[in-house]
Amino acid sequence: MSFWETPHKTVYQGTSKTGRDTVRIIPLGGTGNVTKNMFLYEYRVDGAIRDILIVDCGIGFPDPEMYGVDLVIPDVRYLANKKQHIRGLVFTHGHDDHIGGIPYVYDKLGNIPMWGTTLTAAFANIKLAEIRIKSRVTPVDFEKVLRIGPFTVSFIRMTHSVPDAANLVIETPIGTFYHGSDFKFDFDPLDGKRSELAKINAAGKRVVLCLLTDCLGSERPGFTPSEQVVGETIEKELKLATGKVLFTTQSSNISRIQRAIELALQYGRHVAFIGRSIDQNVEAAVKLGYMKFPREALVRDRDLKRLPSTKQFLVVAGSQGQPDSALSRIANDSHRFVRLDEGDTVVISADPIPGREHDVNTLIDAIYRKGARVSYSDIMEDLHVSGHGSQGDLMLLLSAVGPRYIFPIGGTYKHLMQYRRLAQDLGYEKREILIPEEGQVLEFSSHSAPRVVETLELENVMVDGLGVGDVGNIVLRDRQTIATEGIVVVVIPIQKSTGRVTSGPDIISRGFIYMKESGGLIDAAKRTVLQSLRLKKGRMMDWQFVRKQISENLSVFLARETGRRPLIVPVIVEV
Amino acid sequence: MSFWETPHKTVYQGTSKTGRDTVRIIPLGGTGNVTKNMFLYEYRVDGAIRDILIVDCGIGFPDPEMYGVDLVIPDVRYLANKKQHIRGLVFTHGHDDHIGGIPYVYDKLGNIPMWGTTLTAAFANIKLAEIRIKSRVTPVDFEKVLRIGPFTVSFIRMTHSVPDAANLVIETPIGTFYHGSDFKFDFDPLDGKRSELAKINAAGKRVVLCLLTDCLGSERPGFTPSEQVVGETIEKELKLATGKVLFTTQSSNISRIQRAIELALQYGRHVAFIGRSIDQNVEAAVKLGYMKFPREALVRDRDLKRLPSTKQFLVVAGSQGQPDSALSRIANDSHRFVRLDEGDTVVISADPIPGREHDVNTLIDAIYRKGARVSYSDIMEDLHVSGHGSQGDLMLLLSAVGPRYIFPIGGTYKHLMQYRRLAQDLGYEKREILIPEEGQVLEFSSHSAPRVVETLELENVMVDGLGVGDVGNIVLRDRQTIATEGIVVVVIPIQKSTGRVTSGPDIISRGFIYMKESGGLIDAAKRTVLQSLRLKKGRMMDWQFVRKQISENLSVFLARETGRRPLIVPVIVEV
Repeated sequence: MSFWETPHKTVYQGTSKTGRDTVRIIPLGGTGNVTKNMFLYEYRVDGAIRDILIVDCGIGFPDPEMYGVDLVIPDVRYLANKKQHIRGLVFTHGHDDHIGGIPYVYDKLGNIPMWGTTLTAAFANIKLAEIRIKSRVTPVDFEKVLRIGPFTVSFIRMTHSVPDAANLVIETPIGTFYHGSDFKFDFDPLDGKRSELAKINAAGKRVVLCLLTDCLGSERPGFTPSEQVVGETIEKELKLATGKVLFTTQSSNISRIQRAIELALQYGRHVAFIGRSIDQNVEAAVKLGYMKFPREALVRDRDLKRLPSTKQFLVVAGSQGQPDSALSRIANDSHRFVRLDEGDTVVISADPIPGREHDVNTLIDAIYRKGARVSYSDIMEDLHVSGHGSQGDLMLLLSAVGPRYIFPIGGTYKHLMQYRRLAQDLGYEKREILIPEEGQVLEFSSHSAPRVVETLELENVMVDGLGVGDVGNIVLRDRQTIATEGIVVVVIPIQKSTGRVTSGPDIISRGFIYMKESGGLIDAAKRTVLQSLRLKKGRMMDWQFVRKQISENLSVFLARETGRRPLIVPVIVEV
Repeated sequence: MSFWETPHKTVYQGTSKTGRDTVRIIPLGGTGNVTKNMFLYEYRVDGAIRDILIVDCGIGFPDPEMYGVDLVIPDVRYLANKKQHIRGLVFTHGHDDHIGGIPYVYDKLGNIPMWGTTLTAAFANIKLAEIRIKSRVTPVDFEKVLRIGPFTVSFIRMTHSVPDAANLVIETPIGTFYHGSDFKFDFDPLDGKRSELAKINAAGKRVVLCLLTDCLGSERPGFTPSEQVVGETIEKELKLATGKVLFTTQSSNISRIQRAIELALQYGRHVAFIGRSIDQNVEAAVKLGYMKFPREALVRDRDLKRLPSTKQFLVVAGSQGQPDSALSRIANDSHRFVRLDEGDTVVISADPIPGREHDVNTLIDAIYRKGARVSYSDIMEDLHVSGHGSQGDLMLLLSAVGPRYIFPIGGTYKHLMQYRRLAQDLGYEKREILIPEEGQVLEFSSHSAPRVVETLELENVMVDGLGVGDVGNIVLRDRQTIATEGIVVVVIPIQKSTGRVTSGPDIISRGFIYMKESGGLIDAAKRTVLQSLRLKKGRMMDWQFVRKQISENLSVFLARETGRRPLIVPVIVEV
């Protein structure tokens, strides 16, 4: 039985509203954590599900203790028996934590229609094409109004760190919701396309029942600076540069990459793109007119060697120090076409994502060791600005929308709490600020306060290699134990007919202790195993019991001798 | 053969100076990384070692990929055959990364004399007593001048985040060294004891051959603020608090804890200490007069329940979110005497150490979930100030000492490079700024430029549970593989007399895939194993070859089917 066939559990079941029509918001991800965004809007009449609208379907990044897990995707088992009700999916913007989950779960949703603004759709379609899903996201412009079952969805352009980001106004039979995912107010954006404040105000003139809002920047006072300041910093670096310049940022930050290229051209450099994610995104952006530069300014990676280093500007993937990224490979002398030399400059125009600081610092050290200059945000102000609004941006959206209820999303718990303080400063009462956790189902009706009517027990669906959902909690717990304590396998050959131990036992360990230097310990461990076997002579055929005895006795012995508690696996071989 | 008996290797051996007398500085830790500080000053005459002075002996914190490792200690094998030359050890200050290694390596150094300023000696002696080493560090005051073999060591008081921190002036037969480990210039320190700038200037009046200097703050412009600002912030929190206040900081930051207690008393609260590291340090500090408060202000943890929450001020260990610390246990409802309630306040007066951000954020979220208020440095300015000098502090020390050569220590590579830029701004030339890495031996003489004469191949000596050095690179590599890919054990029973497989094979995996749902995969894997055995029929007794074949074939098969490369351990059981 695969993960997807195991039924989802509801750990709390409350009573529903008395009204005829209700709308439930079901966060399958994106609240209480920053990534894996996926929200359901579910319309019910007399308690029966009629229509479901999905907003976003992103990947999450594994916690450090999820050893070996590549990424996490939303647990969509709730939808398993509700496919006939799903009317469609709208993506808010083209970041992986909003679009990246779709290739993994598309076949679980039924063949549903999907929409997104132009670049959002293009980025999502790259993901779908990669694993040969035929369906595509339909691109829509910001004036489009979608009627999706009983839902009317309109788009509001917002500035963020990827072009074409949108907030959604979702009208439902019981009232209007404002889905305010990732944004900031950049009044001087690089692409000239500001947030559509007039549309936000228009939405606010009607009654908005609930504002779902980005809250990731709720700890930062003031407004988030404009992307313009980054351009100025990049120019400073170009002025100082005496060799190649390598520039890295989030691969989806098309406007910043465009700006960097324009500046590089002004300084007489040619441009090369290094790394698959950069290649793909730039190709899509150029095709759609989101990036523009003269073709002759480009140089292929293999032709770089013909250019003097002072003429090279390389846009490189790997701003988070990912060990297998182009930039890490370059810094470690293992890239096919690019090497770092003394006098080169590397500009890291990104802040480490929480949890990636170690990788980024390792990368910086590796670059320095090559004799190159590195600019990174700890030593150079304005080398990166966040795409998320700070307290000022957040208060501006809240004031413009003026909702009856607020539901902060896209932040960890501390960001939610900090947002609540802000909203309270603006006159909202605690009960008007909803802090549901993932899986908590909030029910709204037109005439009474929203409340949690159900709590779904969501699991982390982990992707490891080709497997989706096959690394579950048991596998992960074993990995954690072995990673920190090691594993000890005890092999005991038993004669089938007599139930006697024929030889051994053999003890094999990995990640526990260096066996060749631990002969005494191993011999004593073998004696412990044999004693466990001897003690239970009368019940020797109850193998499960014997295995448990061996595990317990050996565990106590090894903990006393080494202070470690390895995973112990007794294997009884009948011969 | 234990780790300590394996000889250390020299990977580079250059030519020595021609002069009669030389001094070598050998960094066994503390350059290229922040922790595990240990420096040797080695005096030679005509190339022969005469005398060795050791400065500091600290622990290091494991890299994230050192799974299960508790801490790292310096590799002192270089000293194994040189005990007769070691004249003594001086500690600069009482932080674990300067004193914490001594209990692990003391028996490798011979019964050497040790010195430190009063509180430094007290903290180091707590460590030694814990594992029942009889020797003790001799406390000295700042006016003391030690003559240790040919070295004359005097102390300069420096402000840092622990009282009694010292820089050392080390006079040798070939010139004077200034050992400027961790410091900042706090001109208004909480204990009133400023850095002794006059002494630094006096040292600078003589010729200082080389300045070893803290460089951790070299990325930060300006001066590091005084500890005073933290007091003001703590007072704000006390004013706002409506329930218990829990205060946490580094357990060695005695002055800050003292200040927090004074403020708590002003606000009519009683004080309890929660956590072993806090208990031990406070006890030592009180005994030596570094902390003062009325005995009746104290309350034992078990008596807290008799006090109203508004009268409680708890100084709690665990400011880095360590999962087994007192504060984490409290936040997760598993502390014996303390629980968090709505309305309580937790003040985290510390910045996360790089790599610990995830644990600290998890802690903050857990506290919020209890309904308590948390103050932490992301939302509250001046809740923590660094103990390390910023660019201004560093330039002040450099200008006052005016050395011929500079050797930045106690920073990662990026800090060293950043310090070099600073020193260049002050007029030093690149060749005067020495950037050796751990194990690189720098030789100084009175008449020619210092240079690297030898490079020792140092290993990370890892402490895991009770084992010191028994987790080596092989064990660690296995842990890494298993942690991310899992382990597959293949058990093959073979009849000893005939060399035939009697049954099976059995395949056991952990951390790889959930076996109960993967019957088909396991069966196919067994067939792969059997094929490997059949192919090599003629050579069936060459078990090593058979094992290798099984590993390779099974690895290819599993990678193709699952995208993972688990550690494969074939076990052949002769029966």
